[in-house]
Amino acid sequence: MTASQLFKQIKIKESFLCIGLDTDLQKIPQHLLEMEDPVFEFNKQIIDATHDLCVAYKPNIAFYESMGEKGWRSLKKTVEYIPKDIFTIADAKRGDIGNTSKMYAKTFFDTYNFDSVTITPYMGSDSVQPFLEFKDKWAIILALTSNTGGLDFQFISDENGEQLYQRVIRKSQTYGQNIMFVVGATRAELLADVRKMAPDHFLLVPGVGAQGGSLSEVARFGMNEQCGLLVNSSRGIIYADNSKNFAIKAREQALALQQQMKIELEKRC
Amino acid sequence: MTASQLFKQIKIKESFLCIGLDTDLQKIPQHLLEMEDPVFEFNKQIIDATHDLCVAYKPNIAFYESMGEKGWRSLKKTVEYIPKDIFTIADAKRGDIGNTSKMYAKTFFDTYNFDSVTITPYMGSDSVQPFLEFKDKWAIILALTSNTGGLDFQFISDENGEQLYQRVIRKSQTYGQNIMFVVGATRAELLADVRKMAPDHFLLVPGVGAQGGSLSEVARFGMNEQCGLLVNSSRGIIYADNSKNFAIKAREQALALQQQMKIELEKRC
Repeated sequence: MTASQLFKQIKIKESFLCIGLDTDLQKIPQHLLEMEDPVFEFNKQIIDATHDLCVAYKPNIAFYESMGEKGWRSLKKTVEYIPKDIFTIADAKRGDIGNTSKMYAKTFFDTYNFDSVTITPYMGSDSVQPFLEFKDKWAIILALTSNTGGLDFQFISDENGEQLYQRVIRKSQTYGQNIMFVVGATRAELLADVRKMAPDHFLLVPGVGAQGGSLSEVARFGMNEQCGLLVNSSRGIIYADNSKNFAIKAREQALALQQQMKIELEKRC
Repeated sequence: MTASQLFKQIKIKESFLCIGLDTDLQKIPQHLLEMEDPVFEFNKQIIDATHDLCVAYKPNIAFYESMGEKGWRSLKKTVEYIPKDIFTIADAKRGDIGNTSKMYAKTFFDTYNFDSVTITPYMGSDSVQPFLEFKDKWAIILALTSNTGGLDFQFISDENGEQLYQRVIRKSQTYGQNIMFVVGATRAELLADVRKMAPDHFLLVPGVGAQGGSLSEVARFGMNEQCGLLVNSSRGIIYADNSKNFAIKAREQALALQQQMKIELEKRC
């Protein structure tokens, strides 16, 4: 998918919502466990209930991988089930030396047909570039993450005052086209800094829950004329309810976020 | 496996060799492709031919993952086939927020029963700690990688002159026990610096090929009294030959390295 196709979907749906499919057998409604493929069944119902409200789905690969072969099968069925006009993100946080990253790119772009993969930047250029060689596919590079441990290294400041996450954003733009960045929402004002360094790039923003408090801050500091944002919610949507009504409740949560997004889009682009 | 069990194996085998099982259908001998599971068949023959010469095997997960479910099946069979007194490393370079890293740890330690996993440190403490909660399992954290892109970020120096890789080594020792570090062999003298910061930790050193030139340098700068080194060779051993004799040739390469290692061990510990 191209950036302009993605923006077109954002305009049509009045939404820049990404839904995280972090599907966990321990957390999905119990009645699904009797089915042949509970993970896919859960995802299918979530997708059926929310696909008109979001522009992206983001399965976190760890959840599928932990179930072995069966998990990978559920993942494949899930990606195939997602409507083709929705952007798909393999949240895999991969990255290795060149010939190995090439294998990872092949996995997610060819074998599983995702539109994008999240990448960890620690190993630099040749760990990212193989992901940029696929037409209309995207590398989404971790810049600023919203977890506690994000503070351990990402804010290290060099002699010139440039912080690690800033260096990642600056340097990785020299690797090629079709890059997006992961930028956590815990400190929305940092988005303004990122936006200055990467005015045209899409930013994938996790950490905005169903609670939604900071969505308007994220839009204020992070939105550009082509929206330039994908805001993710995982647990706040998919685990909003644990009964047979889980998909209805998931839709309500997704709708609440989409309604707020609509307002932000009308205001800003 | 505990560190002292690993050291015991090193003493018995007079070797600190790790063999990288980066098994690629494009590169293995053609006659294997007719078999039901060529990847496992290749690994099995390599293991049969080398298991008395090495103390660790390191499948790079990208190569298996890229083959979908079938690849994961070959991986599982491979890990099960490796003798129990040999240390197993899932070279996966994983790392995510806490609850997700927990799933990755479960994957490699429970589902696939590896002794260790390689971890990328960009997301800090909570991305590593879940791997440290498994008894006698190990997190092998990327510190200094030998690829070109390693220069992009790992040498960033903060106001106090501490470089990113040094901060990773210092900081991650506060995360818990059972940590090892990946330290590339391209500049062996840096091993001396790492060894000073982590006197007792095992270091996993890639980048020493069958050519073996720098093995004595690596030992000189990196070895401690409990050896403290696992030196990896992948392609130099497993792809030494492409005919039906591939396993015999692989053994020759492994033996050449083991013989050099024996000398270093006699000299230094």
